Amino acid sequence: MKRRFRPEEYAQKLLEGDIVMLSQAITLVESRLESDRLIAEKLMEIILPHVGKSIRVGITGVPGVGKSTFIESFGSLIANQGHKLAVLTIDPSSQRSGGSILGDKTRMESLSNHPNAYVRPSASGHSLGGVQEKTRETMLLCEAAGFDVILIETVGVGQSEVAVEGMVDFFLLLMLSGAGDELQGIKRGIMEIADSLVITKSDGDNIDRSKLAARQYQNALHLFPPSDSGWIPKVMTCSAVENSGLDHIWNTIKEYESLCKSNGYFGEKRASQNLKWLKENIQSKLNQMFYQDEGMAFLMKNIERQVSNDVLPVNVGVRQLMEYFLNNRKEGVKD
Amino acid sequence: MKRRFRPEEYAQKLLEGDIVMLSQAITLVESRLESDRLIAEKLMEIILPHVGKSIRVGITGVPGVGKSTFIESFGSLIANQGHKLAVLTIDPSSQRSGGSILGDKTRMESLSNHPNAYVRPSASGHSLGGVQEKTRETMLLCEAAGFDVILIETVGVGQSEVAVEGMVDFFLLLMLSGAGDELQGIKRGIMEIADSLVITKSDGDNIDRSKLAARQYQNALHLFPPSDSGWIPKVMTCSAVENSGLDHIWNTIKEYESLCKSNGYFGEKRASQNLKWLKENIQSKLNQMFYQDEGMAFLMKNIERQVSNDVLPVNVGVRQLMEYFLNNRKEGVKD
Repeated sequence: MKRRFRPEEYAQKLLEGDIVMLSQAITLVESRLESDRLIAEKLMEIILPHVGKSIRVGITGVPGVGKSTFIESFGSLIANQGHKLAVLTIDPSSQRSGGSILGDKTRMESLSNHPNAYVRPSASGHSLGGVQEKTRETMLLCEAAGFDVILIETVGVGQSEVAVEGMVDFFLLLMLSGAGDELQGIKRGIMEIADSLVITKSDGDNIDRSKLAARQYQNALHLFPPSDSGWIPKVMTCSAVENSGLDHIWNTIKEYESLCKSNGYFGEKRASQNLKWLKENIQSKLNQMFYQDEGMAFLMKNIERQVSNDVLPVNVGVRQLMEYFLNNRKEGVKD
Repeated sequence: MKRRFRPEEYAQKLLEGDIVMLSQAITLVESRLESDRLIAEKLMEIILPHVGKSIRVGITGVPGVGKSTFIESFGSLIANQGHKLAVLTIDPSSQRSGGSILGDKTRMESLSNHPNAYVRPSASGHSLGGVQEKTRETMLLCEAAGFDVILIETVGVGQSEVAVEGMVDFFLLLMLSGAGDELQGIKRGIMEIADSLVITKSDGDNIDRSKLAARQYQNALHLFPPSDSGWIPKVMTCSAVENSGLDHIWNTIKEYESLCKSNGYFGEKRASQNLKWLKENIQSKLNQMFYQDEGMAFLMKNIERQVSNDVLPVNVGVRQLMEYFLNNRKEGVKD
């Protein structure tokens, strides 16, 4: 077991911008030990008045779109401007052990070595709900440590885009120039909730094609329902290898921030994200209570099979499961 | 209290296509009485082998798009072809009392009087989850009574479109010709999950504009991520008052049905909808357990305020709520 400090010690060093302590605090937050959880909760309470002073940007896109290269170049641009940048990843499929972050380290080598940047991979071994919770807390720790730009990358499969959209201010979708097959991996509905699209790899003989794609998407976005923010999503092109278009993207994000801070949407969205986080957290605790019993898992499998084959009505299945739950539940909730 | 029958009596009359008994069975399913619930559960078990033999179509669109007029004309076309058509509504905001369905009756007067059609308004006084559950069971009752086309209309506000999308085979979005303001009421992400769009009110001097809009939307849809069904969403125009374009829409739905039945998607989607329904039902029961205590409502309000104002960390709020729940919970679950 690693060394632990008092919550006040973590907090003080964090607020001084101590990066080693930041990493240790994140490890603390990711820990499943009850004793760690109590320290972590106290720590979160102490730092709470010091969080929130960043712009939180979510980035997603299908595999092959060039997310790592984009974040490496885009992140360097931001860090070079004097911002303190933290890069986090939401990846529920990650099987990395707590200590081994070699994959991500090599993936974003130059950014990781930048004095203004901090790259931290996903909490491993958690469910999506767990990863999401840990990532949100990690984000707050980074803010307490003085990071004023947070990039949260998702692996772009299944529900993780929705999870990241629920914790960021601005949601960026990276796309390739040719419409069609490469959209296969994008969850339906995601394009419509993105705050901007970026066509990547706009270099060499791909420039014309990506500019055309950008125009097409821009036209399509005009037909979408508008966002409550009053923001009209933009479609941009960039080349991470040629470092072109990245400043335009960064300026767009700042423009969005300034619009939404002036019309009050920025704060409203964060408040509603907090409430949603609270509700989801309770939901996930209730689910843990419900599913922690091994007999329940067996019964559930059985009922799922019958329900999906239409041989048992859903409401009867629900009643059987609830009866089992009420007769067999254990006290307390484990994380 | 109204008269109740034995489950077998309901079932027998239902399977004979008795419409009066169908209405009474729906009232039974919508009832909150424990004694009714037990009869309803048994009834659902008996009819289960006889349900599912319909095409389930969801219809949504912003207020003003002409949903009622569309359903009246479109429904008449279907009923005139000899299909037995049931029209249900999901409207969680509905405050109608159980008996008064005057609003909907007048709204779709000619369809209601059609011998092949059955129009039933939303279950009132329920939460969205409750409305959704009752609507699904009502749909199954209609199928047992021999209805082979089910139209489920949503009022097109908030979450009800997502709810209806989770219980139908085909999801139709009605739109007006001019892009822009009239999209305001559509939830973001809905366009992307629609199986087809219909531009309404394509008559008089609006024909050119609606044809142009249809082309624009069709182009935009090509840029969307494809559906797992292999189906490419179509954009159509229609005029409910001139009865034009309606047969094309109905043929499109039949084309979709035939494609998805031949590639297996039809059955897969229904099975996964059943499983999702099971999960959501359990979730809503757990939530009822959690929130049924009055002291909890008070504590929740207090914690929500602190969390949205960033003076209490979410995880601490969750712990306080869970502790209260575990110390104060009552036995049993009420509906």
